[in-house]
Amino acid sequence: MEQAGQELQDLREEVAETTKEIITLVAKRIELAKRIGQVKSRDSLPIDNERVEEALLQEVILECKQLGLDQRLGTKILSTLLAESKKAQRAQGSAKAQPLITPMVMMAKATEIEKTGRKLIRLDVGEPDFHPPKAVLDAVSEALYSYKTYYTVGRGIPELISALRNYLAKKYGYADAAENQLVVTPGGRFAVYSAVATVASEGDSVVVIEPNWPAYKEGLEYIGAKAITLRTTLEDEWQPSPESVKAAIKPNTKAIVLSYPANPTGKIMDKVTFKEIVGIADDAGLTVVSDEIYNDYAYKPCPTILANLPKKYILTSSFSKGWSMTGFRVGYSLAPAETSARMLKILGLMITCVPEFIQRGAVKALGCEEEVSRNSRVMKERIDATTAELKKIDALELLKPEGAIYAWAQAKDPKFDSAAFAMELLEKKGVTISPGTGFGDYPRCFRMSLGQPQESLTAGVRKIGEMLA
Amino acid sequence: MEQAGQELQDLREEVAETTKEIITLVAKRIELAKRIGQVKSRDSLPIDNERVEEALLQEVILECKQLGLDQRLGTKILSTLLAESKKAQRAQGSAKAQPLITPMVMMAKATEIEKTGRKLIRLDVGEPDFHPPKAVLDAVSEALYSYKTYYTVGRGIPELISALRNYLAKKYGYADAAENQLVVTPGGRFAVYSAVATVASEGDSVVVIEPNWPAYKEGLEYIGAKAITLRTTLEDEWQPSPESVKAAIKPNTKAIVLSYPANPTGKIMDKVTFKEIVGIADDAGLTVVSDEIYNDYAYKPCPTILANLPKKYILTSSFSKGWSMTGFRVGYSLAPAETSARMLKILGLMITCVPEFIQRGAVKALGCEEEVSRNSRVMKERIDATTAELKKIDALELLKPEGAIYAWAQAKDPKFDSAAFAMELLEKKGVTISPGTGFGDYPRCFRMSLGQPQESLTAGVRKIGEMLA
Repeated sequence: MEQAGQELQDLREEVAETTKEIITLVAKRIELAKRIGQVKSRDSLPIDNERVEEALLQEVILECKQLGLDQRLGTKILSTLLAESKKAQRAQGSAKAQPLITPMVMMAKATEIEKTGRKLIRLDVGEPDFHPPKAVLDAVSEALYSYKTYYTVGRGIPELISALRNYLAKKYGYADAAENQLVVTPGGRFAVYSAVATVASEGDSVVVIEPNWPAYKEGLEYIGAKAITLRTTLEDEWQPSPESVKAAIKPNTKAIVLSYPANPTGKIMDKVTFKEIVGIADDAGLTVVSDEIYNDYAYKPCPTILANLPKKYILTSSFSKGWSMTGFRVGYSLAPAETSARMLKILGLMITCVPEFIQRGAVKALGCEEEVSRNSRVMKERIDATTAELKKIDALELLKPEGAIYAWAQAKDPKFDSAAFAMELLEKKGVTISPGTGFGDYPRCFRMSLGQPQESLTAGVRKIGEMLA
Repeated sequence: MEQAGQELQDLREEVAETTKEIITLVAKRIELAKRIGQVKSRDSLPIDNERVEEALLQEVILECKQLGLDQRLGTKILSTLLAESKKAQRAQGSAKAQPLITPMVMMAKATEIEKTGRKLIRLDVGEPDFHPPKAVLDAVSEALYSYKTYYTVGRGIPELISALRNYLAKKYGYADAAENQLVVTPGGRFAVYSAVATVASEGDSVVVIEPNWPAYKEGLEYIGAKAITLRTTLEDEWQPSPESVKAAIKPNTKAIVLSYPANPTGKIMDKVTFKEIVGIADDAGLTVVSDEIYNDYAYKPCPTILANLPKKYILTSSFSKGWSMTGFRVGYSLAPAETSARMLKILGLMITCVPEFIQRGAVKALGCEEEVSRNSRVMKERIDATTAELKKIDALELLKPEGAIYAWAQAKDPKFDSAAFAMELLEKKGVTISPGTGFGDYPRCFRMSLGQPQESLTAGVRKIGEMLA
């Protein structure tokens, strides 16, 4: 033991020395970052430089390989250093990231104005205006009065898990979903958060196609992972090529997020491209996170991972859109059992469980096919009518949505500032829209939610036209 | 520009070189950790060594100060290195952490058994068995049928925020809670998670008094922060001394969690000690996270941070216990506006909002004083009767709970294994309890939830006595 004591002590001293050397080098690196920041600030150069970052990533990974060091440890440390370096660089100049006007920011602002009594045409919030099915209300209320008001297991009540399995089998012909692959979540958003937080961690990256709902990026940023954004344009009909997906994958990439029908573009990826991208993900060992929340609003055949099951996958979905149950906050995820267990752990530590009376309502919802079909039909009519109205506006161009519940328009003016436009539209015309900058680098675009009666949509579009004239 | 180009290039090359040197040293450090692991494994020494870790922490902080490096960057990198070193050490030996039998694990096991039709006496789950107030059920149901079923603002509906402000003023005489200080959360657990995730991040530490509900530690572990556990014993009546709190604070400590009445011990800290600890936190610049979820079940005067407001604070609470609304998943937090904004951001990115119809129920709950008083009265009777029963068992010793909804007993046998006992009790006697190991290093203790009618509690205690005899 005494010998071991001396041996341990020697080793520990060496560890302490090495730790101090590491810290000294980190300080040196931050100093260098500050000097880079001074140069950039002097010459008005941007802080971010993807090319430099990527070269560093490649070098770190190579170094890890040569040293036999776990690559994820190397990329995590690099990520910590890069974040700190950017902070140090920013402190040298005045370059500040502009705060995004996300749909939730617009909603908060509009709610403020509505408090003053002013009536607005609300085209910002991404939710259908339909009533939830009556049978769901009844089921929730009945469950309440039957005291389904206690804790339940984290995964979800067995009745809902079982109903979801039947639903997936019936709707997608996917009969393989085992109990331990499903998790009932408080909304699709939590399913998405726990999905990205399960596939990636600090120092990893995930491919996200833009324009897109910001929640994927927000989740990745929260856990310290990087969203590699793959830009699409109106010219390529808001769809990335398989080649561009392949090129976006870095050595630290763990997943790709797909979501069709897409929010905000209404795009439905063609099945061939979808299948190719799944193949690319499989080859690269990535998880495909497929957010299929809008699948009830699809007006051409819509791909699903259930028909092209990747080796690693997480499906996220929700009762929010198809059933118009946004305010119930209930969704679900499907993933291989081991992945699902990790997602469940996150849910358990943050949420315990989704209220049982709400889950009882969700069970009932799965049988409400008629209401879902009606919602879908009405939305199709709105897409047709609203697109026709939007096409009358000379200053705009758009791809007719193939699904989802939005219209996504682009100003022909290359200098159009949709955030400023949205604020002016709200103040002068009382119409709320979501500026394109909330969905990626799209200052020329904006999103209109079609979760309003057609009269409001038509009136809203006309006011947009007036503002643009 | 060309000059700047060359200058930038030189600096970047130096950054890349320094990065590689850092990675090389990290690899060296991991190699040293492996060798330490071999020595420890050979001589059966434990992997964790608090003293060594703390010395390293001190050295890193000193080094940061000397180098002018942000201390949080240093401690974060140290935390990453320590975690990886432990992993490397573990890989050398067979030392494995035993999985904890938490209340949620017991609940899952018991639910499995109940599925087979066997009736159990369930003393594991920490929830009252009372019905939620009828007025709450009515309010939720009415809100449902009035279509309060859409998204709402993340913070919580203005009616609930306002009702909470009135409630805090009336109940605690605390009239200063501003709107932007409150956040409505999906349960107390989410309030707790967002609290610890807001005050700490990777490389930080937070003082947690044990035995305790495991959620604080789980949240800290999830974000990569360290829980400094402050052990209390039956001898000191499950209360830490101010001196021990002071001694537990490290240079990277950001907060201390207090929670009285305490789960599982039922302890209520005396007000003098509470105030002293708040003073210590203030002096050290720490946030006091005070989880006051059991405050309606207090049978002696219970301290609250609202009467001793620390400079930095987060109050978390919930409708789960006082109103017996566990399954509604609705709680709240109160913190300075800036802290609250950061907590709200976490909620927004994961949850969007708590269902409005549930929030309408919570508004109503705040007026249900009679039901809360009755629940509290019944719980007092159960504490009295159950404690009397437990005291009849020679093999046990306990402090009579001063609040909360549990009894926490300790076996006199110093070698008692509560996890094994709990499993045997479940199998042989059909009674579920929560082993002490779920609340810290307490293998001699177990927790009984008093959320059952007295007959079940008495029957449960007698079966425990039989098993121990």
